[in-house]
Amino acid sequence: MNEKLKKFREYREKMNKRMIDTDNKVIKRIINLDTNTYMKGALSSKEKEMLGLVSSMVLRCDDCISYHLEQCHKLDVTNEEMYEIFSIANLVGGTIVIPHTRRALEYWDMLNQEQGENK
Amino acid sequence: MNEKLKKFREYREKMNKRMIDTDNKVIKRIINLDTNTYMKGALSSKEKEMLGLVSSMVLRCDDCISYHLEQCHKLDVTNEEMYEIFSIANLVGGTIVIPHTRRALEYWDMLNQEQGENK
Amino acid sequence: MNEKLKKFREYREKMNKRMIDTDNKVIKRIINLDTNTYMKGALSSKEKEMLGLVSSMVLRCDDCISYHLEQCHKLDVTNEEMYEIFSIANLVGGTIVIPHTRRALEYWDMLNQEQGENK
Amino acid sequence: MNEKLKKFREYREKMNKRMIDTDNKVIKRIINLDTNTYMKGALSSKEKEMLGLVSSMVLRCDDCISYHLEQCHKLDVTNEEMYEIFSIANLVGGTIVIPHTRRALEYWDMLNQEQGENK
Amino acid sequence: MNEKLKKFREYREKMNKRMIDTDNKVIKRIINLDTNTYMKGALSSKEKEMLGLVSSMVLRCDDCISYHLEQCHKLDVTNEEMYEIFSIANLVGGTIVIPHTRRALEYWDMLNQEQGENK
Amino acid sequence: MNEKLKKFREYREKMNKRMIDTDNKVIKRIINLDTNTYMKGALSSKEKEMLGLVSSMVLRCDDCISYHLEQCHKLDVTNEEMYEIFSIANLVGGTIVIPHTRRALEYWDMLNQEQGENK
Repeated sequence: MNEKLKKFREYREKMNKRMIDTDNKVIKRIINLDTNTYMKGALSSKEKEMLGLVSSMVLRCDDCISYHLEQCHKLDVTNEEMYEIFSIANLVGGTIVIPHTRRALEYWDMLNQEQGENK
Repeated sequence: MNEKLKKFREYREKMNKRMIDTDNKVIKRIINLDTNTYMKGALSSKEKEMLGLVSSMVLRCDDCISYHLEQCHKLDVTNEEMYEIFSIANLVGGTIVIPHTRRALEYWDMLNQEQGENK
Repeated sequence: MNEKLKKFREYREKMNKRMIDTDNKVIKRIINLDTNTYMKGALSSKEKEMLGLVSSMVLRCDDCISYHLEQCHKLDVTNEEMYEIFSIANLVGGTIVIPHTRRALEYWDMLNQEQGENK
Repeated sequence: MNEKLKKFREYREKMNKRMIDTDNKVIKRIINLDTNTYMKGALSSKEKEMLGLVSSMVLRCDDCISYHLEQCHKLDVTNEEMYEIFSIANLVGGTIVIPHTRRALEYWDMLNQEQGENK
Repeated sequence: MNEKLKKFREYREKMNKRMIDTDNKVIKRIINLDTNTYMKGALSSKEKEMLGLVSSMVLRCDDCISYHLEQCHKLDVTNEEMYEIFSIANLVGGTIVIPHTRRALEYWDMLNQEQGENK
Repeated sequence: MNEKLKKFREYREKMNKRMIDTDNKVIKRIINLDTNTYMKGALSSKEKEMLGLVSSMVLRCDDCISYHLEQCHKLDVTNEEMYEIFSIANLVGGTIVIPHTRRALEYWDMLNQEQGENK
């Protein structure tokens, strides 16, 4: 597995557990809500994850972007679709989003490569 | 026509014309790009407008929200779908988005009402 | 009652009801969480409302600021304490927070005046 | 005098006085610093006000924008220069800045008109 | 001493000195104000540092968060209090704050561990 | 060449190429616009790059800051001028900008050092 992907996933998992271990009710509910919100409803999970991704991009949070890229990848967002999400994020959020798009694109390419290796 | 809807649309149109009248190349290209980006591509216009809306919500720009609400309404986003977009914006962006959601919901209701009157 | 205070409270109450009427689970839970989070825990409600206020100030959301000012006022935050919260918001958030501080101060003065009238 | 210009200036002056009346040292020093920072140094006041304006635009604070527009106008920033500042703000900050640019342009036009009337 | 804590403190100290060495009056006054603002007034230093921390969290600046965590730790903020600050930051600021909370929690744990070692 | 400068430039160049390789029209136009906007017009390139820099600072994007620092350096912005840009960014954007100013100052010093070595 790609070292960057591995590191991101492991740290995220470890610290999410640590957050739950705080036993703070509000924190636990927010983490719970964070999972439920993206489940299929009137909108599909794919559409919701795309919404989560573009929100993370205009708010410029690399870790949030990486997470939603993973979800979008699992839900079969195509390259062309992904590039269009990037384009909207850069249009609405401005060139300040470009450095995050560089990293997002690198992460997306790693996810594609990982998938190729697992075939 | 609802007075609020009318006022928003007229001011927007008048000042967009004024922006183009500056004859500044960059401003004109950005306005032009703003139209092209939401045209059908790998993603549908409806999907793109939903992405534009959620971005505007987490960045908390009421006028941008109103505009994308208009576009979503024209493209037949349903109430249930709209509420799910609101839910993602409030989850990702936090309770700081609630006041903008109040106004967005009011605007959305006015668009629905206007449509009912035009049937 | 002061007209500005009245208008803010009525609109907030009306649209919060409308938000709950969407019957969207995530929206309802966030609104619910928004109440619970500020209840007494290891920190007092007063301390929590001060934290909510300063967060709203640096994120520059006037309606959120007004709401937390109301809560702080009920919980007997003094003028001197309030001005120190303002000072931290303006230091951390910069002069971009000044226009919001002007409006916050005006709102705070109205709350003090209203209290005086009700004595 | 244009009613909008008058209202903005009067409210700003009144509430800045009120802020100073809090007698909070930090608030007073920030307001003081806010004046000193834009004084001529290695950069001219005009250059500094342009920097203050573009910062206010990408941070999307209408009142801060109005204030720096007034200062830029006094310091003889030309229309073409102003439109280029707008273009950079919209490029870097994205289309989310457009509604603020509409209002900025309207304010700028009012300043030009006021000057014409005073000749 | 924990390597991460050491690295953060040394870089911060070195570059703050460098900032002062610019001999720019405004920069020096802001750094000076940054110290004075958190001194005991109507609010205690502990309360002020908690306000500084939650502001840094919703504005999502990791280095600012680390600094205020250090100050809160010195001023005997308890774990339960800290988790409630985190909960308010995540509620108001949204899930976009979660990655910063992960790193804040890791840093907080390191501060607790360091203290244990020094007993 | 300084390792940090080299790494930043190489990654930026590699990923900008990758962004263009997406062949997404909007992305390509934004990148194109990003170059054109800073060309000499009513304002000089130096003035425009200073505007781009201060915008990047208040929006707190380290990579955008590094890029505009490079451009400002090429266009002979002096140390005193640079420190005044920093001072405006920290005043308008608040102390939340300080950590970015530390890194900006370090980067600026590296650019000065590199220039000295190339004389």
